[in-house]
Amino acid sequence: MKKLMLLAAALCLSPVVRADEGMWTVDNLPLQRLQERYQFTPAPEWLDKVRLASVRFNDGGSGAFVSPGGLVITNHHVALGQLQKMSSEKKDYVKDGFFARRPSEEQPCPDLELNVLVSTQDVTARVLAAIDAKASDAAQNSQRKAEISRIEKESFEKTKLRSDVVELYNGGQYQLYRYQKYTDVRLVMAAEVQAAFYGGDYDNFVFPRHDLDMAFFRVYEDGRPVKSPAYLKWSKDGAKDGELVFVSGHPGRTDRLLTVRQLEFKRDYELPERLKKFALRRIALKEYAARGPEQARRARNKLFGLENSVKANTGELAGLQDAGQLAAKKAEEEALRAAVAAKPELAFASASWDRLAAAQDKVIARFKDLQYRGAADSKLTGIAERIVRYVAELEKPNDKRYEEFRDSNLDSLRFQLFSPAPVYQDLEERMLALDLKESLDQLGAEHPYVKAALGGKDPQTRARELVSGTGLADPELRKKLAAGGRKAVAASQDPLIAWARELDPLYRELRKWREDEIESVETLEGNRLAKARFAVLGTSTYPDATFTLRLSYGKVAGYEEGTTRVPCKTTFHGLYDRAAAFDNQPPFDLSPLEAARKGDVDLAAPLNFVTTNDIIGGNSGSPVFNRDGEYVGLIFDGNIPSLVGRFAYSDERNRAVAVHSAGILEGLRKIYRMYSLADELSAP
Amino acid sequence: MKKLMLLAAALCLSPVVRADEGMWTVDNLPLQRLQERYQFTPAPEWLDKVRLASVRFNDGGSGAFVSPGGLVITNHHVALGQLQKMSSEKKDYVKDGFFARRPSEEQPCPDLELNVLVSTQDVTARVLAAIDAKASDAAQNSQRKAEISRIEKESFEKTKLRSDVVELYNGGQYQLYRYQKYTDVRLVMAAEVQAAFYGGDYDNFVFPRHDLDMAFFRVYEDGRPVKSPAYLKWSKDGAKDGELVFVSGHPGRTDRLLTVRQLEFKRDYELPERLKKFALRRIALKEYAARGPEQARRARNKLFGLENSVKANTGELAGLQDAGQLAAKKAEEEALRAAVAAKPELAFASASWDRLAAAQDKVIARFKDLQYRGAADSKLTGIAERIVRYVAELEKPNDKRYEEFRDSNLDSLRFQLFSPAPVYQDLEERMLALDLKESLDQLGAEHPYVKAALGGKDPQTRARELVSGTGLADPELRKKLAAGGRKAVAASQDPLIAWARELDPLYRELRKWREDEIESVETLEGNRLAKARFAVLGTSTYPDATFTLRLSYGKVAGYEEGTTRVPCKTTFHGLYDRAAAFDNQPPFDLSPLEAARKGDVDLAAPLNFVTTNDIIGGNSGSPVFNRDGEYVGLIFDGNIPSLVGRFAYSDERNRAVAVHSAGILEGLRKIYRMYSLADELSAP
Repeated sequence: MKKLMLLAAALCLSPVVRADEGMWTVDNLPLQRLQERYQFTPAPEWLDKVRLASVRFNDGGSGAFVSPGGLVITNHHVALGQLQKMSSEKKDYVKDGFFARRPSEEQPCPDLELNVLVSTQDVTARVLAAIDAKASDAAQNSQRKAEISRIEKESFEKTKLRSDVVELYNGGQYQLYRYQKYTDVRLVMAAEVQAAFYGGDYDNFVFPRHDLDMAFFRVYEDGRPVKSPAYLKWSKDGAKDGELVFVSGHPGRTDRLLTVRQLEFKRDYELPERLKKFALRRIALKEYAARGPEQARRARNKLFGLENSVKANTGELAGLQDAGQLAAKKAEEEALRAAVAAKPELAFASASWDRLAAAQDKVIARFKDLQYRGAADSKLTGIAERIVRYVAELEKPNDKRYEEFRDSNLDSLRFQLFSPAPVYQDLEERMLALDLKESLDQLGAEHPYVKAALGGKDPQTRARELVSGTGLADPELRKKLAAGGRKAVAASQDPLIAWARELDPLYRELRKWREDEIESVETLEGNRLAKARFAVLGTSTYPDATFTLRLSYGKVAGYEEGTTRVPCKTTFHGLYDRAAAFDNQPPFDLSPLEAARKGDVDLAAPLNFVTTNDIIGGNSGSPVFNRDGEYVGLIFDGNIPSLVGRFAYSDERNRAVAVHSAGILEGLRKIYRMYSLADELSAP
Repeated sequence: MKKLMLLAAALCLSPVVRADEGMWTVDNLPLQRLQERYQFTPAPEWLDKVRLASVRFNDGGSGAFVSPGGLVITNHHVALGQLQKMSSEKKDYVKDGFFARRPSEEQPCPDLELNVLVSTQDVTARVLAAIDAKASDAAQNSQRKAEISRIEKESFEKTKLRSDVVELYNGGQYQLYRYQKYTDVRLVMAAEVQAAFYGGDYDNFVFPRHDLDMAFFRVYEDGRPVKSPAYLKWSKDGAKDGELVFVSGHPGRTDRLLTVRQLEFKRDYELPERLKKFALRRIALKEYAARGPEQARRARNKLFGLENSVKANTGELAGLQDAGQLAAKKAEEEALRAAVAAKPELAFASASWDRLAAAQDKVIARFKDLQYRGAADSKLTGIAERIVRYVAELEKPNDKRYEEFRDSNLDSLRFQLFSPAPVYQDLEERMLALDLKESLDQLGAEHPYVKAALGGKDPQTRARELVSGTGLADPELRKKLAAGGRKAVAASQDPLIAWARELDPLYRELRKWREDEIESVETLEGNRLAKARFAVLGTSTYPDATFTLRLSYGKVAGYEEGTTRVPCKTTFHGLYDRAAAFDNQPPFDLSPLEAARKGDVDLAAPLNFVTTNDIIGGNSGSPVFNRDGEYVGLIFDGNIPSLVGRFAYSDERNRAVAVHSAGILEGLRKIYRMYSLADELSAP
């Protein structure tokens, strides 16, 4: 009986990585699988090129260099935040698109930071050596963080490169990633939002699809376009059905290594609560947007992000609610537990599941505190809170600070904090009032956070007095306060600074509790489980996504749906069909330029296509390229079945959705008449 | 408690008819619902016109007069049988289409009979009066049949019209339907099969869809086109999203009034067994078709029909296997049983369920006999059997004959039996061998039927000797034998006639058993349950489909699918998109003329559309028309969710699929250049 169970365990554990599964770090690719499945082994120079051509958009996305002259492509919806910040009541680049037809028209972005991964270095041994295994969980956690901050600081001082220690495999590995950082980034082209996001929320995460979800930026240094560190040569024909393709990019977060208890927590607490919050936010934003066209414009990217999250989280929740999904996870976990129980050398991990469960129970006990303390929907409160924290943290030695205030991160932090992007007072007020009301409703009037946040007022009144009273919309005031240090902040009469000062101790208490009681256990036990997994499965696996560079492989492939087949691509015909079939009614109407230039378009040209690559949010804007390293497509979505990819990859109908390289050229030339840009891409 | 149960019963029973549910007889429309839901009450003249413009295709489909000059439109797949019979190795009208550009080119069909319903008359009282309620089940059944045959004969002799007594509501009502019959029907136009059936079996029952599933015939009498009894005026614009539309036609069969036990029999016996048989047939036909292009051509319409049935039956089975569907049926039945138990005046039906269950058990006991005796896949064996039966039946008085040999049916029978349509010897042999082998496998070598059918040979040898030895491919021999009567048939040396002579007694025994033991109970108890249902629900309901004229109402409507919307129509853009997206690979390739004339087509013209009308197989070719009686579309399919419609209508995603009237005109003019036909349709 026992033998049989172990056999079952081995069976469950061995085929963990499915077909084209995996968001692989560039230094640990499944070379053997790749060779067996696709008869391809990338050369080191190929990998270097791919890494250096891949760009991280620090407001949450990916992109790639596609010309020698610093030209970067990404999704329209990755560019959306910057487009919104560059637009005004008079000039709506989101609605109308943006088209720089000569270099002088390329327009600087207010606060866009791009990163390119220059090198990686395994620092696991050094991080672990700094931890005293006999110390308390909390102490070990502090030791770990302090050592990481030292490594980052040393690296930054030595190289002047952005230096991040990345925790992989839930703490099984630490890697020092060094990035070239670019902050003078200029907008070259953005499609009209209706062309980029055709079909709106209805078609989001759906295939067949018809989006020109594209934007181009150019990276400058010293006032001149940079020479790209590397770039992907444009493929005019794109990829064929069945062809091997790669995606490089920065997937934000997966939870594939979580325990079943942790997944159940997400299913029963985190996701339902989040969806409830989203629903309230959506109502508030819609109500605000309905006040007038300018309000609709102001709320647009918030609403887009919110609806996108609702759909993604709904898909994730459905995945966790699927009995089959969770059963597979349970089988995997039981197999690993059986292996740990059977091998004395893995005894170190035998208590990990129970200790993680205990930490989980603590989170549940403070769940409302964790969910409803804060005003995340208002930009100004975030600025106030960061200023108050900034001046306090900077007085501490580097290795005692919160991560985000470490020396190695300060440049990026200041770039964001002092951004000249516009702030809309009425929208700020609406969202802050909503946050305050929710805190009141959920925590009760007697909760210390609520008392301090409301100051005896009702949410609406409080939001109005804070937002109308503050001067923080002006970046100069932020700079002055930051430069003035703790004294200037303590003396400030700004009502929002006063508000943040009062709430800061509560924030620090909660964060300390979280770090000492929860994060410490999660890291320690995550590390132990990772070690056990390595011992049983070898390192031929990939870590959960961490918004760092990953490579996935797969192929262009349609799929069966119901009793029929979905082709691997769509054409411009499909776009014009859908618009006509809905009598051009929103959200299925054509963009003005798509409508006006229909006669110019080669209607049979491919528009979007799907691949089996394993991707997730954060991969938006990722390049799709072939074995010759040529650019064949622009990732912009996953389909609905891919949403459970947060927890497990499935290769049946799970698809990544991309704009076709030939469709991009067709759109640039025929719809947008961006001839010089198209020429730059297709230069030999 | 009892009261509560009755209340529940009333609740279950009252909302039986859903939204746009119902295949209504023309004399019992739900006028009040129609008025309430769509503010429309048809005038008597409107109903007369609709009835007289509706055409039944006796080889299994529907159609409509669409010009004053006898022009009838139906589906390509309804015309397929005739097209196949008119084609040869040299002239393939199925593949290439058929286009009569002047009257002289209109080509007579070999054996197509069309019917138009001229009048209906309730004869329930007369039929029931002829039945002695104290007689045995079998005797009552004979009395019923005899009276029906008398009514039909009288009517036929009096009117010379085809006269059928139709049993509605499982025997709750008898109606005498009189038809004008047309047998000189000529082919005017048929699309290429690839245009008519774009996407092949993959896209069958799927929407969005892109089919020009159309064919035109003209009805002649005395060598001249008839003046249409009525016709539907063509609408160039078709119907709008949300518009009220009607479908008239001849739905073949529904099983919505069956008991739960009867449904379970279908689920557990009938449908699985049928699908198993279909699977074998499909393999045999594919093997035959692979022998060469001419064999592929010969097998084509059989294969089409088979694959169509597989998909339809799979959908039906899935519906019955759906726990929710059956639970609803159970609730309905329990409610009716409770009502019958509670009301003494309904006691007549109290044993009906048990008696039907007992009959069902008898069917199960002889299930293999009923399934595997016969050679339905060979045309020649059917001809031989009918000739042997014909000469015997005609010696009997009219009211003692099998229904199909009654005087009132003889014209139609002879028209079919003596058809000059081609018979393909190799295909006949292949299919007969398959039938014989299945009988052997399923019933065993010692079964009397198997012994007689095989005559000591193996199936292949037996099939070869029968098919190669018979002269029945020649209609003249059939006529001679039929005219020669029992004596000629008894003396015939034709091996297939000899074969049929030997099997005839076995057939008669089984049929008699079925009529006396099963049909008699089903009719009697069906009638009782119908009466009980009328008593509880009133007559505001509609009977199961019986391949007689029905009218359904509904509206043009897209639907939600997954997280997005499916529009209510497609355009020609969609066709060209799908072909390009599949790189024009079969079955998603364009027809030669669609490809050649793409440049001429208005790509945004509507092609197919969907409505909520309640239809089923047999409605193929039905007209869709608006409240003004204008022709707006040509029914050719239901979507996958509509397949459970055999047992229950659902209005959520259940859709009828039609070719758009504007798409038909566009196809006729631009793709097929059938200008005079298009002009005839759009004449003012």
